[in-house]
Amino acid sequence: MKPTATITFFGFVFLLSVLCPGLAHSYESLVEKKVFTIPSFTTVSGDVIKDVRFGYETYGHLDANKSNAILVLPFFSGTGHAAGKFADSDQAPGYWDSIIGSGKPLDTDRYFIIAGDGLINQAIKDGHTITTGPASIDPSTGKPYGMRFPILTIRDLVNAQKALADSLGIQKLYAVIGLSMGGIQSFEWATVFPESTDRVIPIVGLAETDGYTVANLNVWSAPITLDQNWNQGNYYGKSEPLDGLTTSFKIVIHEAQHYGGVAKTVGRKWAQEGKDPAGSWENKYLAEATLEGIAKGLATVSDANSFLYQAKAIQLFVAGDGPNLDAGLAKVKAKLLILPAQSDLMVFPRYSQKAAEHLRQLGKSVEYNEIPGDGGHIDAIYNIGAVGDLLRGFLSH
Amino acid sequence: MKPTATITFFGFVFLLSVLCPGLAHSYESLVEKKVFTIPSFTTVSGDVIKDVRFGYETYGHLDANKSNAILVLPFFSGTGHAAGKFADSDQAPGYWDSIIGSGKPLDTDRYFIIAGDGLINQAIKDGHTITTGPASIDPSTGKPYGMRFPILTIRDLVNAQKALADSLGIQKLYAVIGLSMGGIQSFEWATVFPESTDRVIPIVGLAETDGYTVANLNVWSAPITLDQNWNQGNYYGKSEPLDGLTTSFKIVIHEAQHYGGVAKTVGRKWAQEGKDPAGSWENKYLAEATLEGIAKGLATVSDANSFLYQAKAIQLFVAGDGPNLDAGLAKVKAKLLILPAQSDLMVFPRYSQKAAEHLRQLGKSVEYNEIPGDGGHIDAIYNIGAVGDLLRGFLSH
Repeated sequence: MKPTATITFFGFVFLLSVLCPGLAHSYESLVEKKVFTIPSFTTVSGDVIKDVRFGYETYGHLDANKSNAILVLPFFSGTGHAAGKFADSDQAPGYWDSIIGSGKPLDTDRYFIIAGDGLINQAIKDGHTITTGPASIDPSTGKPYGMRFPILTIRDLVNAQKALADSLGIQKLYAVIGLSMGGIQSFEWATVFPESTDRVIPIVGLAETDGYTVANLNVWSAPITLDQNWNQGNYYGKSEPLDGLTTSFKIVIHEAQHYGGVAKTVGRKWAQEGKDPAGSWENKYLAEATLEGIAKGLATVSDANSFLYQAKAIQLFVAGDGPNLDAGLAKVKAKLLILPAQSDLMVFPRYSQKAAEHLRQLGKSVEYNEIPGDGGHIDAIYNIGAVGDLLRGFLSH
Repeated sequence: MKPTATITFFGFVFLLSVLCPGLAHSYESLVEKKVFTIPSFTTVSGDVIKDVRFGYETYGHLDANKSNAILVLPFFSGTGHAAGKFADSDQAPGYWDSIIGSGKPLDTDRYFIIAGDGLINQAIKDGHTITTGPASIDPSTGKPYGMRFPILTIRDLVNAQKALADSLGIQKLYAVIGLSMGGIQSFEWATVFPESTDRVIPIVGLAETDGYTVANLNVWSAPITLDQNWNQGNYYGKSEPLDGLTTSFKIVIHEAQHYGGVAKTVGRKWAQEGKDPAGSWENKYLAEATLEGIAKGLATVSDANSFLYQAKAIQLFVAGDGPNLDAGLAKVKAKLLILPAQSDLMVFPRYSQKAAEHLRQLGKSVEYNEIPGDGGHIDAIYNIGAVGDLLRGFLSH
């Protein structure tokens, strides 16, 4: 009934790689997770977090002038594993392996790519991701923070990534790029560190979280708090709210697809031959079983509280330090390439169009294009190759 | 924090009436709920349900030839309360009061309107709705059916409504109309009772539930079964899964809106002055509080198992008796007016376009138009007046 129930996050990426042969060619070298530490991190709201650490990966080589670094910011539920494999036996490479590597648009012969796991990362149980968040031990109590971890903003996440770049001696990044929540962080970067990069590429992102998306993020989070195992976030060392987190991921994954793509791949097929969904509550359609399997795979490697923290950070987001979006966008100095996905039903192209219009009215340099396809939001991963030349061109001048 | 938490279903319609002044003029007479009974009802899959009963309302007068009846089919979570008030003190009239009444598009001076609650209706606790479903007493055990109630299909729901029309001596309906799940039932009606009406008006409906929507309905239902009070559907007389049902309705209500409308009404406003959402997990945006309030109001008057049954019925839906949609649509004889809502993010206009194209290829008479607006799916209620003249014209010849 649940043929894909054991799919892990990397299984998810693997599934995508099956749908998209372009993902098959892995970044050539094996990659390793490094650790960045910040002994004391002060949040925008004034909270101090001790012993902050998060993982990051690099692909390619930093040049002598430290002028060729591209920072890749992580998406919601995603990690800093953007390309390559940790071991030859890995099922699939990092999520953007189709565009990161030798001769690829983010060309590792030319650029030094940095991809950080960042703070409050969800995928704490995937065996590779390193982060500081609600599941971390609070040094002052010796116990996990849980929901006592400070509420973070996108600015906080970006500040931590900036500290990583600083620690590598990089004063100016060649480019900053990210998809979805990584696109959001890219917009933030352009407004709060305008001198720190010449190029920013927000993909399927938002410059400001609108009321509709605020409500949507509430909906995403609701099943977690509904699960009795959530227990106000105090579940570490006990039964975790796996069912709630699975349901939350079901909502996310479903929204990340598009009816056109679903019609082509699974349509109205049954999950199991001979098991007509009309005959029993147990019998499901393949569209349901697939969703359930991917969501459960993600939930198994993720932390429910961190999901809530990421969702809250996005709800709070307006690019720049305020007092409003205009003031934020006015600070932009980099040139931007804004790329929504044509069929996105989660972060609508209209959001990107408005951001582009806004920036142009302010006299900023903006290119706008759309990732084609009928895969929805997730086209920012599995159809990213379709804008490979655009990315290459934008980066080359 | 939850200013709208006490909103009931009728409060929900009232909220819409505030947004849409056109809803303010109520159907002139007070309406009453009547009861239709079927001593023994056999489902398509062969189950026999004894003592079936459901409520219905009528507006206007049946003419001597019984040739002026229009059947209005209910939407998901909706009832047969389409127009008027039960008492002068009611906060708001039925959901389509703006188009049903004297001189209105569904003109009660000319037509006899029938609106049935139908089987497996969810709103069993609103004080008016009458239905037979999982919350009903199984005569063979003296206890509520729960999840032992037979799985019903859209065909079953339509068969029950047809029995109501037959019981009133109506051999041929002047028209059949409905929105959302009522639009789905309208498509079914056109294919399975082709001789029984000359006009069918599916509004924001589907001729076939595609894989994307199948998955979506799974997502809608998931929070109910996640609530420990659901208890495999055996909650009658105990604590009901109110939190799960509220979360399920949050998903539905959120999808029924559109980012354009939300931006105009609540935007990024806080739910309470001085309570910055950045400051606490308790502090919410108005977009969240509004959603929570409407969902809780609906959940309070609704039955969780019936939600699951309606969702399952929609998942199973392909118009006509098969073996495929083509065979179903080939049977259509009525002329159709297909009306999606332009900004619908739940049942996309593309679905209606495809149904219209399909029917035209089969040589059927089809008019296609769109309800304008940026209110999303729910524009089929609160902006229905915008297609009032279209409806009037289609009905007049």
